[in-house]
Amino acid sequence: MAKYAPAVAKLIAALGKLPGIGNKTAQRLCFYILSRPDEEAFALAEAIREAKTKVQLCKSCCNLSDVDPCPICSDPKRDHSLLCVLEQPADVAAIERSQDYNGLYHVLHGAISPMNHVSAEDIKLRELLERLQQHPEITEVILANNSTVEGEATAMFIARLLQSTGIRVSRIAQGLPSGSSLEFADEMTLARALAGRQVIQEDSSFNF
Amino acid sequence: MAKYAPAVAKLIAALGKLPGIGNKTAQRLCFYILSRPDEEAFALAEAIREAKTKVQLCKSCCNLSDVDPCPICSDPKRDHSLLCVLEQPADVAAIERSQDYNGLYHVLHGAISPMNHVSAEDIKLRELLERLQQHPEITEVILANNSTVEGEATAMFIARLLQSTGIRVSRIAQGLPSGSSLEFADEMTLARALAGRQVIQEDSSFNF
Repeated sequence: MAKYAPAVAKLIAALGKLPGIGNKTAQRLCFYILSRPDEEAFALAEAIREAKTKVQLCKSCCNLSDVDPCPICSDPKRDHSLLCVLEQPADVAAIERSQDYNGLYHVLHGAISPMNHVSAEDIKLRELLERLQQHPEITEVILANNSTVEGEATAMFIARLLQSTGIRVSRIAQGLPSGSSLEFADEMTLARALAGRQVIQEDSSFNF
Repeated sequence: MAKYAPAVAKLIAALGKLPGIGNKTAQRLCFYILSRPDEEAFALAEAIREAKTKVQLCKSCCNLSDVDPCPICSDPKRDHSLLCVLEQPADVAAIERSQDYNGLYHVLHGAISPMNHVSAEDIKLRELLERLQQHPEITEVILANNSTVEGEATAMFIARLLQSTGIRVSRIAQGLPSGSSLEFADEMTLARALAGRQVIQEDSSFNF
């Protein structure tokens, strides 16, 4: 192991624990941090401490928030009858960016994956069911789980659980990504784009 | 911009300032940090703070150290007549890892690069010259600057500065990296490997 000062070695080790950051990158980040003005380095340390101290899960939607309930759950202007179920807080940010959804969210924090020892109890599924019971105003659940094997399985599992509740359960559409060519789409995407085809009507809302 | 809690947005912004960390990676790192136990997140924050507080440049060799002079400069077992000049603290670690060098170091913290507005005054060159004056026991300076255009230019610049001092100035060898094939070496490497060829003698110290 290289002869670094103990405090340097400690910082490299701490940075190296981050996902996707190997030893070389950790070294580079460490030397970069040490080369910056005190304020900037301390600001990073403080941002970590502050985020970790202040940010909790919203008790209603399980999204990350520094207030409880979170700004989305407590926004009276949003449609409280629509609930979009997703895997990660980053997914909420992604959908919010599309500016096309005005309902509420529920963050599962994962997907059921027996291979990785993640069962239904390890994700925020119980919280979802309790929420649906306590909030009969929710009339549609949109399953926006990832389009991966685990995401699909989790979506199907939830759909089956909600079958008898009378709540409308939908799954986000799968097909060609916007702006992409048919030529480069994989078989699965094409198969699903075909299966999910929609009739074009005179009064259709499609934008050409 | 996505609707994140202020503390989350602040952490993403702080992480995004690190080199090679874009907005997406900063988000991923942020969510990872928030998903870890308090101890681990606080340990990272504390490691940054501690490294930045404790670690300074050794006044002699300009390497990062939490003591002054650094353990290498104050080690009586090392050869104080040999001085290896390099660009970055990481380079010291790289040479120490080879376990083949027992002299001292001098870290320039950069290379002269007019394109990037880095002049001779912006690197620890004055410190090198003062050190050589104050320490007449240094008889050889090994220029281990990177083999880049800037590194070469800086090495040549230093070599010229030291020309009249009587100090032996050498440059680390350039040639085929150990374990590599001739087939995949670039022209410049091959040209330098040929130019730097060494006669093989009966009593040679080459290891076959």
